[in-house]
Amino acid sequence: MLNAGVDIGGTNIKLALVETGGDDPIIEARTAFLFDQAGCNLLCQRIADSIGSMLRDIGCDAEDLGHIGLALPGTIDQSGEILVHAYNMGYHNVPIKKVLQNHFPGTQIKMINDAKAAAQAELKAGVFKGLDTALLLTIGTGLGAGLIMGGKVFNGGQNRGSEIGHMPFLKGGIPCTCGLTGCLERYTSATRIAELGRANMGEEYADAKAVKDAAEAGDKKAQEILDIYIDDLATAIGGLCSAFDPQRVALGGGFSAAGDILYAPLKKLVAERNFFKARYDIVPARFRNDAGVIGAALL
Amino acid sequence: MLNAGVDIGGTNIKLALVETGGDDPIIEARTAFLFDQAGCNLLCQRIADSIGSMLRDIGCDAEDLGHIGLALPGTIDQSGEILVHAYNMGYHNVPIKKVLQNHFPGTQIKMINDAKAAAQAELKAGVFKGLDTALLLTIGTGLGAGLIMGGKVFNGGQNRGSEIGHMPFLKGGIPCTCGLTGCLERYTSATRIAELGRANMGEEYADAKAVKDAAEAGDKKAQEILDIYIDDLATAIGGLCSAFDPQRVALGGGFSAAGDILYAPLKKLVAERNFFKARYDIVPARFRNDAGVIGAALL
Repeated sequence: MLNAGVDIGGTNIKLALVETGGDDPIIEARTAFLFDQAGCNLLCQRIADSIGSMLRDIGCDAEDLGHIGLALPGTIDQSGEILVHAYNMGYHNVPIKKVLQNHFPGTQIKMINDAKAAAQAELKAGVFKGLDTALLLTIGTGLGAGLIMGGKVFNGGQNRGSEIGHMPFLKGGIPCTCGLTGCLERYTSATRIAELGRANMGEEYADAKAVKDAAEAGDKKAQEILDIYIDDLATAIGGLCSAFDPQRVALGGGFSAAGDILYAPLKKLVAERNFFKARYDIVPARFRNDAGVIGAALL
Repeated sequence: MLNAGVDIGGTNIKLALVETGGDDPIIEARTAFLFDQAGCNLLCQRIADSIGSMLRDIGCDAEDLGHIGLALPGTIDQSGEILVHAYNMGYHNVPIKKVLQNHFPGTQIKMINDAKAAAQAELKAGVFKGLDTALLLTIGTGLGAGLIMGGKVFNGGQNRGSEIGHMPFLKGGIPCTCGLTGCLERYTSATRIAELGRANMGEEYADAKAVKDAAEAGDKKAQEILDIYIDDLATAIGGLCSAFDPQRVALGGGFSAAGDILYAPLKKLVAERNFFKARYDIVPARFRNDAGVIGAALL
């Protein structure tokens, strides 16, 4: 079955045609760029043009598509029709599905939060294949969480979502973009490493990879920053293991490629910081940049 | 179908014969008392004697039982055979199921954590009937949590349990009996109200009900303690609603009967403290003292 996946980000749209069941699922891909504050109509036009171009290049048309899946960086309403909020893009109550449907009248369109799409990609074609209970944490601007329960991506008991990154971590702590304080994602996102880098090492270290590279090169301050971050991340993951006892935990996002400097201390600390004192399997996600687009196509 | 439920507590054992499917499920009940540090053999002898006595009183015998369910205040191993830890009772690696099986050779015996048993009771015969996703928080010495996912009691992806009370709440905060610090249950248990009562109002207020009664009678200090407690409980429940988006939240344990002085401010604050800014349905559990025994019988 051929599906289209679309991952809508802050500055660009990733698109792909994806064959279900294959081990290397992307068969054609595009990236389309967005003007600042592109409205819903322009956004949907760009998506339709790019999907049309990909289909033509492989000699297909819209009738060959099983569905079009949209991964969105925000909250989708309970009916799955409206993008309620995408704070980073300034979108509020946008009827993306309805507008895009005008371009593809006969094709099913599905919307999903991008963190949930990434978990779906791992479940169907990545490190969660065949698992019943698993947790994907995407370390980026925030902490995206995708929970697998009963062999499916969990989207909340009332279909509002599952915003694990906004559970309390340090009550009364750092203010969060969501309006609460001390949320888990404020301590475990890549943004947190960048903030600690800027404050302790200067502007050129306001970046998670720069801090990690400096620590690997032996910089003591950078190592201290990583130690603080990994301690918080381990406490967070340990608590999530106490609650979910997952068969596997995967880390996504660019920083998840950090290797031993991250995973060795993290696994040791998580084993101490969960109620069962169990060793949990913590691995990098298979998909990084393509997670949203593949997950949306494999819904 | 007739089943036996057994709820093993620190000082006594509650037992009941329970008819499945009925709205008022208990048909015969007993309470047996335990000597300090009763060993596993004595414990199982007491259970067998009490079940035998109840069965005789209604003219039945062990062959009429569908199963015997045991609710235990601790951690059960992944195979469901061994009580790994019950810290409050000093039990470690106790083969209760095997020893009790000698008394009932032909009867199926099932073990479950007591917080999970309480959630099962609400699912089968209480306020969670027919729900897919729900959360029971039992406010007692600790915070017992029973999560309903996919219409079933969730016991962890690897069957170790689901210890929501030991997720982080205030990282680096009050030490917990589990060995970690700042666990959610340290701020949301009835023990917390008692501790605040003792520290701020004196020894006679080292009790959650005494503090609640004083607040209802207009005592300002008692009201301040409740305000602190409800603020923390709302932050915890709000975070759990962000993660699970449950169809209903129920509170169990003695303090859950507190009424409007608890539920009115709690519902208002939870609506502010969840990511979706949604109003959640928060109700008292149907079963308080009998939750464990009914849940174990209705497994």
